[in-house]
Amino acid sequence: MTMTAVDLRGTVYEANRRLGETGLVMGTFGNVSAIDRKARILVIKPSGVPYDQLTPDHMVPVSLDTGDVVDSRLRPSSDTPTHLELYRAFPSIGGIVHTHSEYATVFAQARLPIRCMGTTHADYFHGDVPVTRPMSETEVEQDYEKNTGLVIVEAFRGLDLSPDNMTAVLVANHGPFTWGSDAFKAIEHAEVLEYVARIEWRVRALNPDAPRPAACLVNKHHSRKHGPSAYYGQTK
Amino acid sequence: MTMTAVDLRGTVYEANRRLGETGLVMGTFGNVSAIDRKARILVIKPSGVPYDQLTPDHMVPVSLDTGDVVDSRLRPSSDTPTHLELYRAFPSIGGIVHTHSEYATVFAQARLPIRCMGTTHADYFHGDVPVTRPMSETEVEQDYEKNTGLVIVEAFRGLDLSPDNMTAVLVANHGPFTWGSDAFKAIEHAEVLEYVARIEWRVRALNPDAPRPAACLVNKHHSRKHGPSAYYGQTK
Amino acid sequence: MTMTAVDLRGTVYEANRRLGETGLVMGTFGNVSAIDRKARILVIKPSGVPYDQLTPDHMVPVSLDTGDVVDSRLRPSSDTPTHLELYRAFPSIGGIVHTHSEYATVFAQARLPIRCMGTTHADYFHGDVPVTRPMSETEVEQDYEKNTGLVIVEAFRGLDLSPDNMTAVLVANHGPFTWGSDAFKAIEHAEVLEYVARIEWRVRALNPDAPRPAACLVNKHHSRKHGPSAYYGQTK
Amino acid sequence: MTMTAVDLRGTVYEANRRLGETGLVMGTFGNVSAIDRKARILVIKPSGVPYDQLTPDHMVPVSLDTGDVVDSRLRPSSDTPTHLELYRAFPSIGGIVHTHSEYATVFAQARLPIRCMGTTHADYFHGDVPVTRPMSETEVEQDYEKNTGLVIVEAFRGLDLSPDNMTAVLVANHGPFTWGSDAFKAIEHAEVLEYVARIEWRVRALNPDAPRPAACLVNKHHSRKHGPSAYYGQTK
Repeated sequence: MTMTAVDLRGTVYEANRRLGETGLVMGTFGNVSAIDRKARILVIKPSGVPYDQLTPDHMVPVSLDTGDVVDSRLRPSSDTPTHLELYRAFPSIGGIVHTHSEYATVFAQARLPIRCMGTTHADYFHGDVPVTRPMSETEVEQDYEKNTGLVIVEAFRGLDLSPDNMTAVLVANHGPFTWGSDAFKAIEHAEVLEYVARIEWRVRALNPDAPRPAACLVNKHHSRKHGPSAYYGQTK
Repeated sequence: MTMTAVDLRGTVYEANRRLGETGLVMGTFGNVSAIDRKARILVIKPSGVPYDQLTPDHMVPVSLDTGDVVDSRLRPSSDTPTHLELYRAFPSIGGIVHTHSEYATVFAQARLPIRCMGTTHADYFHGDVPVTRPMSETEVEQDYEKNTGLVIVEAFRGLDLSPDNMTAVLVANHGPFTWGSDAFKAIEHAEVLEYVARIEWRVRALNPDAPRPAACLVNKHHSRKHGPSAYYGQTK
Repeated sequence: MTMTAVDLRGTVYEANRRLGETGLVMGTFGNVSAIDRKARILVIKPSGVPYDQLTPDHMVPVSLDTGDVVDSRLRPSSDTPTHLELYRAFPSIGGIVHTHSEYATVFAQARLPIRCMGTTHADYFHGDVPVTRPMSETEVEQDYEKNTGLVIVEAFRGLDLSPDNMTAVLVANHGPFTWGSDAFKAIEHAEVLEYVARIEWRVRALNPDAPRPAACLVNKHHSRKHGPSAYYGQTK
Repeated sequence: MTMTAVDLRGTVYEANRRLGETGLVMGTFGNVSAIDRKARILVIKPSGVPYDQLTPDHMVPVSLDTGDVVDSRLRPSSDTPTHLELYRAFPSIGGIVHTHSEYATVFAQARLPIRCMGTTHADYFHGDVPVTRPMSETEVEQDYEKNTGLVIVEAFRGLDLSPDNMTAVLVANHGPFTWGSDAFKAIEHAEVLEYVARIEWRVRALNPDAPRPAACLVNKHHSRKHGPSAYYGQTK
């Protein structure tokens, strides 16, 4: 294993610890991975180990090409094949988070997208957060976790969505996946996703007929934080 | 009292302390018991003692056969006869938890089952969590707590449910009981029950017509964690 | 001032501190009082002092007969005349709590009673928690706080309710008052009231047509904890 | 820079720290400003700096007249032009808070005012908390943040509202702004706004037809705390 992959274990360990502190996961549900694109290795949480018992050595490296475990005797998260398909289809992403966070899961179970109804949503997600189609019996029974990744990719292709502008998805009757340039960005997106899901759930209950914000407002807020005309923060 | 039963006091004490920390109970509501099948003795929380005042010596041993208190001057939980009937009817279970956790109690008071609408539910409970029929005036006035156990057993027989695949029930207008192979598993099931109840309550509000997940998805998730083809975690 | 009244300052101070820790109040809202029936003096929180700045000396004694402040330069809570009327009309009560706790206030603003839909409610409150009629313009403009007490008493007389079995009320468009044999019991009732309000709010959203529990079940649970046939806890 | 403005940095730093502790903001969302009317300088949080990394030196002074940064190399919050317009139009206010607090944002996204349905609301806000009209494409694309301030002022003029009696507003599809005589009062109003938004959201779900409180009750409660006939607290 390369030094980079060793470092990545530390990063993924820190990220999984932090995910455990967000309140987005309960028990051993949920996982974070990150990828070393050069080494073509991703590192992910082991399956079924409680967050408070994790150490960096528990993190499991997996080959992006073969999906095989590299230098570890632990099983990777059972969701690893889903992560693999996302890293393969979305070459710009560096980290992935899977949670069963409560309100995002509500939309996944209700099979409804999280509509973009306000500026906070637009700051982070450029449009409605999509929900995948239900999987067929064959897709569930053979290579279920790999097919979970494939239906996500299919949803993005079908809706012509970019994984850079839309960094979250709801898997039908299951829960959310989020991603970002690294593992910590992916966690931030998981937290904001839960926030906007809570807001939108309450908006629908309060006023199902509320008009959507104008496209110009959504575009304005997204471009304040993203892309060449961004002017939020100190870095430009 | 056998040494085993002495040890069981410590276990049940720890379990009741932990239940008190879950946020599932308020005041002195709720209780945990565990059983020593060989000694035919169950141990349960005393009635009406606050969680922060409990000691192992407070835990009350009760005979599975006679229901009599063994070696204790304290009264057992007033719900003891319910626990007894469950241990008698479901020979595979080792621990029982009763709470008034908020969302599970909402379904009990609304007399609606908690539908299996997603994969987290299916990971833990194989199908809808049932609600008992209302009890008759006679059942309430004579041996109320014992009859509470009997209507639970009746519900499981009527729906042909296994206490191994369905480890929770809602008692109409009252609240949930959960169980498991030991007291701590029963607590875990109480926590997940509350989680899935929160999700399902919000799904019904958001989209009452949401389609159910396919049976194959429910079966897949349940079998990932339970039975001969389980592949979640590190132990197989 | 008698020694008893001095002691009562300490009790009321402790009770107000504890109320501040329950999460039922925000800012300086809310207050607890207690009464020394022999001395005919009640002691109450001063008006508008933050909970974390209170000391026993801040507590304000008030004459039950005249409503005048005794031995204090601080103003008593602006709700004092309401407390006075309740102590006068309900001679068995020893402590009163007023909060703007969230779900109880929701029912007060919606002008709906909190229905008795389950056993936890019945354990504490024997029937629906009533809401007062709206006050007339005259009642609001002259002696508003005293009239608040009088409409509570009117509601109890009109519904033939006993302040021993029903230890809570909702003042229309305002919020809840609870009481008990002492100040700490009144706080416990305020906490349980908020709990049952949360449950009932969600039951109404989930299943507005849910049938009520049988009267026998309500009576059974109330009498398990109250009155001559009580068998809950260790004390009988 | 004057000594006053230096002191104001300390105040605004403290206020932003406190806002970060209220739970009303997540991540770097939200900001507090305060104004020195004599020096005609406002001080505001820098853009995009996490709350736990702030120091007094980070606070950015801005000229009320020109909108230019004074003596700082940091960018002020991107919402600064909104604050500027509010300070210009409402000469009595001394501090402004912007949050994306959850329930207030729900009403902003649902484009519904927060109705005055109870006494706590009336204690703080004299009537319904208004929501601005949606902004035009031109208003969004040119001087967006300045125009946000102008539509707030337009709403207050159109409804003949006083910024002294109504210290909060909802910007459509965006979120709340609150203000007060100083930065800490503005934070208190942001906290109470969120509280009354939570209550009103639940009242609408529970009983959409609930009658409004009589005008006399609203006026009574507002005048108990504000204006010449106030009698709440210790100071009069």
